Amino acid sequence: MCAKLREVPLRQVTVTDEFWSARQRQIAEIAVPYMERVLRDEVPGAAKSHAIENFRIAAGEAGGEFYGMVFQDSDVAKWIETASYSLLVKPDPALEARLDELIATIAKAQQSDGYLNTYFAKRPEARWTNLLECHELYCAGHMIEAAVAHHEVTGKRNLLDVAIRLADCIVERFWEGEDIPGHQEIEIGLMRLYRATGETRYRDMAKRFLDRRGQNPRYFREHTPAHPGEHFFSGADEVMDEFRSSDPYGGYDIDPDDADYNQSYAPVRKQTEARGHAVRMMYMLTAMADAAEAAGDESLRETCERLWEHIVERQMYVTGGLGGTAKGEAFLPDFELPNDTAYAETCASVAMAFFCQRMLNLTPDGRYADALELELYNGALSGMSLDGTRYFYVNPLEVVPGVAGVAPGYEHVLPERQKWLACACCPPNLARLIVAMGRCLWSESEGAIYSHLFVGSRARTALADVELTSGMPWNGGAAYVVHPRASAPFALMVRIPGWLKKFRASLNGVEIEAPVERGYLKVERIWREGDALALEFDLEPRRIHADPRVAADAGCAALARGPFVYCFEGADNPVPLRELRLPPDAELKAGENSELRVRTLRAPGERGGESVELTAIPYYAWANRGVNEMRVWLRE
Amino acid sequence: MCAKLREVPLRQVTVTDEFWSARQRQIAEIAVPYMERVLRDEVPGAAKSHAIENFRIAAGEAGGEFYGMVFQDSDVAKWIETASYSLLVKPDPALEARLDELIATIAKAQQSDGYLNTYFAKRPEARWTNLLECHELYCAGHMIEAAVAHHEVTGKRNLLDVAIRLADCIVERFWEGEDIPGHQEIEIGLMRLYRATGETRYRDMAKRFLDRRGQNPRYFREHTPAHPGEHFFSGADEVMDEFRSSDPYGGYDIDPDDADYNQSYAPVRKQTEARGHAVRMMYMLTAMADAAEAAGDESLRETCERLWEHIVERQMYVTGGLGGTAKGEAFLPDFELPNDTAYAETCASVAMAFFCQRMLNLTPDGRYADALELELYNGALSGMSLDGTRYFYVNPLEVVPGVAGVAPGYEHVLPERQKWLACACCPPNLARLIVAMGRCLWSESEGAIYSHLFVGSRARTALADVELTSGMPWNGGAAYVVHPRASAPFALMVRIPGWLKKFRASLNGVEIEAPVERGYLKVERIWREGDALALEFDLEPRRIHADPRVAADAGCAALARGPFVYCFEGADNPVPLRELRLPPDAELKAGENSELRVRTLRAPGERGGESVELTAIPYYAWANRGVNEMRVWLRE
Repeated sequence: MCAKLREVPLRQVTVTDEFWSARQRQIAEIAVPYMERVLRDEVPGAAKSHAIENFRIAAGEAGGEFYGMVFQDSDVAKWIETASYSLLVKPDPALEARLDELIATIAKAQQSDGYLNTYFAKRPEARWTNLLECHELYCAGHMIEAAVAHHEVTGKRNLLDVAIRLADCIVERFWEGEDIPGHQEIEIGLMRLYRATGETRYRDMAKRFLDRRGQNPRYFREHTPAHPGEHFFSGADEVMDEFRSSDPYGGYDIDPDDADYNQSYAPVRKQTEARGHAVRMMYMLTAMADAAEAAGDESLRETCERLWEHIVERQMYVTGGLGGTAKGEAFLPDFELPNDTAYAETCASVAMAFFCQRMLNLTPDGRYADALELELYNGALSGMSLDGTRYFYVNPLEVVPGVAGVAPGYEHVLPERQKWLACACCPPNLARLIVAMGRCLWSESEGAIYSHLFVGSRARTALADVELTSGMPWNGGAAYVVHPRASAPFALMVRIPGWLKKFRASLNGVEIEAPVERGYLKVERIWREGDALALEFDLEPRRIHADPRVAADAGCAALARGPFVYCFEGADNPVPLRELRLPPDAELKAGENSELRVRTLRAPGERGGESVELTAIPYYAWANRGVNEMRVWLRE
Repeated sequence: MCAKLREVPLRQVTVTDEFWSARQRQIAEIAVPYMERVLRDEVPGAAKSHAIENFRIAAGEAGGEFYGMVFQDSDVAKWIETASYSLLVKPDPALEARLDELIATIAKAQQSDGYLNTYFAKRPEARWTNLLECHELYCAGHMIEAAVAHHEVTGKRNLLDVAIRLADCIVERFWEGEDIPGHQEIEIGLMRLYRATGETRYRDMAKRFLDRRGQNPRYFREHTPAHPGEHFFSGADEVMDEFRSSDPYGGYDIDPDDADYNQSYAPVRKQTEARGHAVRMMYMLTAMADAAEAAGDESLRETCERLWEHIVERQMYVTGGLGGTAKGEAFLPDFELPNDTAYAETCASVAMAFFCQRMLNLTPDGRYADALELELYNGALSGMSLDGTRYFYVNPLEVVPGVAGVAPGYEHVLPERQKWLACACCPPNLARLIVAMGRCLWSESEGAIYSHLFVGSRARTALADVELTSGMPWNGGAAYVVHPRASAPFALMVRIPGWLKKFRASLNGVEIEAPVERGYLKVERIWREGDALALEFDLEPRRIHADPRVAADAGCAALARGPFVYCFEGADNPVPLRELRLPPDAELKAGENSELRVRTLRAPGERGGESVELTAIPYYAWANRGVNEMRVWLRE
């Protein structure tokens, strides 16, 4: 029924969109060098990283001991991935040279059999003994992703060869047996390596990990050594204590009996809901969607569709945030979406974007693009400050200074982004998503080109080159100019966002009627050079009401305009914000905030019977004006 | 300005009220024997107690080892107090004999210098070394309270003499220096011993503990041994693990740096808000009010008034519940009163009732009686099932099965009362409050008799015998018959509840006008034998709206009638309850539930635009019909 899709490769897409290209430049010019300095421990006041030093020690280039989370290596891998992609945005021979130097160190740190992990470099006997907690496969997955990215951008094989040796070592060790990773991610890496090399053993290894998962729900109980304890973090008692106090399972950092936590409680095809650690869940699903496509596995595809729907309909915050509780960084039961104690980890939103992008290549359905857009512009993007150097791990929907970050049960909800994080998974994760967001924009199939987002860009596909210009995200309207390669019919499939209720389409200036199939406007014809398809639409402010089963949002509305969900910040409104009301009939108007460079939404509101003027800003832009109150949902 | 009040002693008050005397009989006939069997480990399926066995071991009457919380002794003490009071409700020579036998064991367990604690019986070198965690003074306080109660009821000195030796041991050890208890309670015990014996050293020791507290905010950091760890619970790893996982401070059960937790962050007179562990706070305030009265200490009285107001205006749930978070069983910042993750420990409400009762004797103000009534009929009473054998430690205001007790962050919110609790502070605490509630009903001064609650009872005071009959709590109306001792003027002061807006008073059948002073109707005259003062009033159902600063209750109403706050249970209403609405103009009507033997409130409601019939029951009566949903606040 559905044409087989493939993403248009990143090198064939150029992002010209003002909003996103500015962000990409910021990542290339500010975040990549900033993160490099953090990883080299050169930023005063940032949490100690030691991640690059760990590789130098393992390579024999430096003395000393491993320091950091047991998965500290993944910070380096995600930075390499980000830095590699950034070379597409801003060529930088010096950075490329430093990457080669770092890769040489990594290659030296690799063992002769392909094994690579700096924590275990001095503990070879402990390799693979504690898959529950030790994240070796997780780190390997990220290193493989980095290698594929580096190869894709630079054409060099230096890191790719490291990754192939590492992947072969893993295939050798894990091809048979019932072992599974404690934190899903290797499956994504293996799938990407399969797509980069065409070697089916990587795809099949990924599938074996996925197929095995949950066949034995007691797997981690049976295969984790008693009270291993020592592994999760090394080198700083105070950070260790912090982790212990958040996850204390009598010597374990992770409870080996909690099979929900890492989705090993049932075979993946039997799973019907999002459960446990949100990032693990979303990484698993990303790999599953990719594997389902690569292997033509229908039952895996159905599982992905079922779980995607479950998440979007019952488990997702209006911002795209995923995971309602800090305990286990996990999903809560359906419709339990507390705003002030939300977890909504940046990484979970980033992973949801990856999952949606894979789903789009399984089934071109506008709902996947809607969710992808939601994450990109809101739940994920809020993880980074406007200047690109401060990061949120947790993305709450309500923050009250004096409570958030301080009161018992609210410690994780910080009212300000941080310079760096002891557990630094989120910053490079978000950066790699944004800098490579060109991957998310276009797909192609035999007879069609799909445009998933109104993000100004140029795409080179087999059928045609297409240019998209758009007023988005601040204004309406989008225009496509097509440069076909041959005179044959094909369809330009333009996703109409779920929030867009009214638009007019015209071809070369003449209004047209065209069908909308599964959320995509289908304009099929023999395209001629320079044909222009234009969409006219306005961005109307809109109100969102939660499912009535979400107790936390009962009687409330959230505001949105275009791709952005809005929030109310103390900087623009009378506090406490919880006393404010947005009457159901209050007219919403767009305004400006030149300091934040955003469009605001304004409305007449009420506070204790008195009229007040309410101002909302896009959610991603909150917490850029010092500590103050914030909330997304306002009582009507 | 205010006449000096004293409570009318328990022996001079007989509760005749149908609602409460049934509860008192239930405690005497069911709860006291049930708890005794629990404490003797004779109830199958209840959590192991071992509390009486610990005394037998310490007395040399049995072998074996101490088992339980480090404060397990207090369970025995609170049971003795309850059992002693129950003898007033239902004389029971066999129980009295068993009490004497138990007291003989306790006396044998007491050391020659008066020290008494079964955990430290075999660890004499560790006595008083860890006041932060080891609760020796806390247990002593409860034993002294038990002794005073036992003496008051039976006239016997066997336990009183133990208590005096114990108190003298404490005075000897703590008179000088800066030591303070890690959990307030000894101050209450010492005050009661002072009132029973007239020995001022007990009052002064209590006051020293109170005056000292917080003078050195680093006291516990400086005086707690490094990583003591071993003390908090002995004998069962799984319970130990449970406690560790809820309070992990790297070897400590209680964080020695958290001076908020036990209110040692500032001198008590400098404290302006409720902070930290709620029960500790309320026990401290109870003792402070008592000491302020006994010592005529104006600054202490002002502190009590200030903190009482702070709690009632900013920290109390509509049910009287105190303490918004399970983390540290603590108060959250002002107006943070989450309903579904509430802690609202039964003990905190019981202690608030004690505090209010002490406040009434400091200043006869109807607001204190309002809060006392709120706790008695709601926040405290909900801790026990209708049949008196199941107990809540935590009293949430919203429960969703499948979330409560299960989901991360909601583990403490159980949807069913338990047979017993590993930490068993609450059941006997509530029982002793109810069985001795006669203490809360009346006070007297030079020229006045105060009736604090419309609870049918007879009181013998210096001025007169007074009989009160009332339709409360289910119906309106109250009548006092006075039998004066002499022909001299005095005032009968009848508290008019804050919720009672309209009433008519008559004397011997003739309507009268009388002033209401600080919440008390003042009828002053030369009373003649048989004079009858009657109040006519109806119990109108009413809506309560929370302070607008309470985000969790925005747009919602709670229902109440007379002294009861109501809740909606799944057993009576369509679920999920969160979808229900109670329109602002919905008429409230009283109904009946014969199974629960309560008056219900009924109203036309709405669910997704459709009409539904809503039924509310008194909050205390929820969770008596199996696991189902419950919520107090309903959206209007």
